[in-house]
Amino acid sequence: MDLSEQILDFGKRARQAARALGKLGSDQKNAALRAMADEVIASGAAILTANEKDLARAQANALSGAMIDRLTLSAPRLGKIAAGIRQVAALPDPVGQVLRKWTQPNGIEISKVRVPIGVIGIIYESRPNVTSDAAVLCTKTGNATILRGGSESIHSNIAIAEALQRGGAVAGLPPDSILLIPETDREAVRHMAEMDRYIDLIIPRGGHALIEAVVRHARMPVIKHAHGVCIIYVDRAADLEMATEIIVNAKTQRPAVCNAAETVLVHRAVAPAFFEKLAPRLAEKNVALRADGAAFSQLAALDYRPLTSATEADWSTEYLDFILAIKVVDSPNEAIEHIERYGSHHSDCIVTRDAELGERFLREIDSATVYWNASTRFTDGGEFGFGAEIGISTGKLHARGPMGLEELTTYKYVIRGHGQVRG
Amino acid sequence: MDLSEQILDFGKRARQAARALGKLGSDQKNAALRAMADEVIASGAAILTANEKDLARAQANALSGAMIDRLTLSAPRLGKIAAGIRQVAALPDPVGQVLRKWTQPNGIEISKVRVPIGVIGIIYESRPNVTSDAAVLCTKTGNATILRGGSESIHSNIAIAEALQRGGAVAGLPPDSILLIPETDREAVRHMAEMDRYIDLIIPRGGHALIEAVVRHARMPVIKHAHGVCIIYVDRAADLEMATEIIVNAKTQRPAVCNAAETVLVHRAVAPAFFEKLAPRLAEKNVALRADGAAFSQLAALDYRPLTSATEADWSTEYLDFILAIKVVDSPNEAIEHIERYGSHHSDCIVTRDAELGERFLREIDSATVYWNASTRFTDGGEFGFGAEIGISTGKLHARGPMGLEELTTYKYVIRGHGQVRG
Repeated sequence: MDLSEQILDFGKRARQAARALGKLGSDQKNAALRAMADEVIASGAAILTANEKDLARAQANALSGAMIDRLTLSAPRLGKIAAGIRQVAALPDPVGQVLRKWTQPNGIEISKVRVPIGVIGIIYESRPNVTSDAAVLCTKTGNATILRGGSESIHSNIAIAEALQRGGAVAGLPPDSILLIPETDREAVRHMAEMDRYIDLIIPRGGHALIEAVVRHARMPVIKHAHGVCIIYVDRAADLEMATEIIVNAKTQRPAVCNAAETVLVHRAVAPAFFEKLAPRLAEKNVALRADGAAFSQLAALDYRPLTSATEADWSTEYLDFILAIKVVDSPNEAIEHIERYGSHHSDCIVTRDAELGERFLREIDSATVYWNASTRFTDGGEFGFGAEIGISTGKLHARGPMGLEELTTYKYVIRGHGQVRG
Repeated sequence: MDLSEQILDFGKRARQAARALGKLGSDQKNAALRAMADEVIASGAAILTANEKDLARAQANALSGAMIDRLTLSAPRLGKIAAGIRQVAALPDPVGQVLRKWTQPNGIEISKVRVPIGVIGIIYESRPNVTSDAAVLCTKTGNATILRGGSESIHSNIAIAEALQRGGAVAGLPPDSILLIPETDREAVRHMAEMDRYIDLIIPRGGHALIEAVVRHARMPVIKHAHGVCIIYVDRAADLEMATEIIVNAKTQRPAVCNAAETVLVHRAVAPAFFEKLAPRLAEKNVALRADGAAFSQLAALDYRPLTSATEADWSTEYLDFILAIKVVDSPNEAIEHIERYGSHHSDCIVTRDAELGERFLREIDSATVYWNASTRFTDGGEFGFGAEIGISTGKLHARGPMGLEELTTYKYVIRGHGQVRG
């Protein structure tokens, strides 16, 4: 079989599996998940051997330390993966939930019921734990999964998927519920994206080029997990201590994630006083600042280092690093305009004691998550109390912001009548 | 400006309008809708003159009587359009509704709030009233609209859109909230579909070629309103009188719509008795039957006319006419398999007195609307009590089945804190 036939075959098998999976009760799915967790532990040695192959190649290819760290598995990390699977098994099952039920005057009873989506394609890069996270959340919600991971972690991905498949088989999960494409050819992404007959939804997780390739070719819905240019506006009525803590947290607690702050806007009236508080805290963490005119001169006067002039490109850059763009604005309006123009509508924040302005910001900023007086780092399924997260959608349709189990379902209308016809 | 620049310009203007529209309160939007209704009536003469141009061309092009009827406007039809707009103005506004609100242990308060989607592109064919329906429902939900109607009704569409724009302007609706592309060049569809920066969602309403063109090119989410191959299964435990009434209604009450039945499956045990009841009723309405082996011979024995042998293609054909495919099956399983294989997952029905089987059918059939003992013709926003309908989604993501006002919105998370940072 050539690649396109192979992927078509995967699609047919997954569609078949999805139909069987959709009929399973919660207990059966949860038993399968627990068996998968057991099998990840039992297959630990095989998974780590496979992971060593990926690591050897990563070292030969001179990948960065951060990349290698993301690739690396270990017995404790496998333990965490297994524990994560057991946690998902323990969560309530959204499938079958009746979202709304009513009776029309003619007596037909209409129920809106949560059901699985069907077949979900997950296209991701580097982190091998996504193989397990994605497959497990899809299984929990009764969806078949076609996984397509990146070449860097292909051996680890195959080993993890095989462990999940073995665990599932033991517990009677339909065959082909979890499929992983062993080919790392880029064309595989295109073939998946065009196969709308057999894949109901694609979730790409990764860099711009990957997401662009999916969006360009996809015939089915795509829920993007794209970049976060998160912006914090420090108002003239801000508690400056609070603003400092929020920015230090949002920028430096974990800069490589999409909900980390990338730009700070400061009202001109409080800029000098605020920079005096903020500068030493950021300097402590070696945050490089990219500042515009007024912010640049005020920070230079404080002898902040490293400090460079911001360029137009900085305002829309996701650094994912200890770098922060910073700008003085003349009004809340200018801040709102800046955020709407340059932000990525992921997570944006105002720090202010002005309740009227805070509420206005929450209303007018059209982002997946909008904050008043809290760190943008809370945009996360765990922090929202969802129990599990498949990612953070930067799209507006179907799912926006953190995606938990519910967002991996759709609904159907179920109508019970006693012979009603339309007049 | 060439066409692509023109459409890009429309996109930018619509995005600008959407931001302003999103800030309007319900009262302002409703006042604008009422002013639009007034203006449709006030502009009646101009609209009917424009409509005459379309009708003259339709006659010159020898369009079918049904097509010409769909194109034709009249004073009473404009009155109905205006009344429809006033009805939408009177409906509750979903925007701003708090879907869920909770406080996390760290004290951050999270609200999930309904908001407009942004800019919605509507691509449709022939019926000029869609111009008003689509624009009005989008305005109600705070979305800017870019309309692209078919060439058959272009003059009527322009005249209606101008009336809506004038009415909106009187009531202070942001300019460019409703835009109509006056070009009927097919390339316009492609340019719209590629403009994901300025269009958040495209809803195509029309034939297969139109929907295929949108799906092939679209970079943004598409909610398809595609075909309905609706199937009714008459079980061995069916009330045969009820089954007859349901089929006559679902096939003949309005055969040209997507929720009309196209195929009937009958359990072998009751087929002869059932055909005796059904045949005279369908013959009365001149329904042509396309029957498989057993159904063919039994109907032929009843001297049913017109009767032909069904071919493989019949099982997946949407006739939209007084034609019905009919087949005898040996079991409910065979019926379910047939529906999953050939149906379009729009609206499917079982007629049975067997409650266990009825519930199983409702559970196992993965269609937007699944019926037990009622006509498929109820798949409709009005019949569901939604008050308004932009169409019936045959996709699974974001909206499935009848789409009312709520389905024209998305949500955002609003977080109120008092300085919380992530630990």
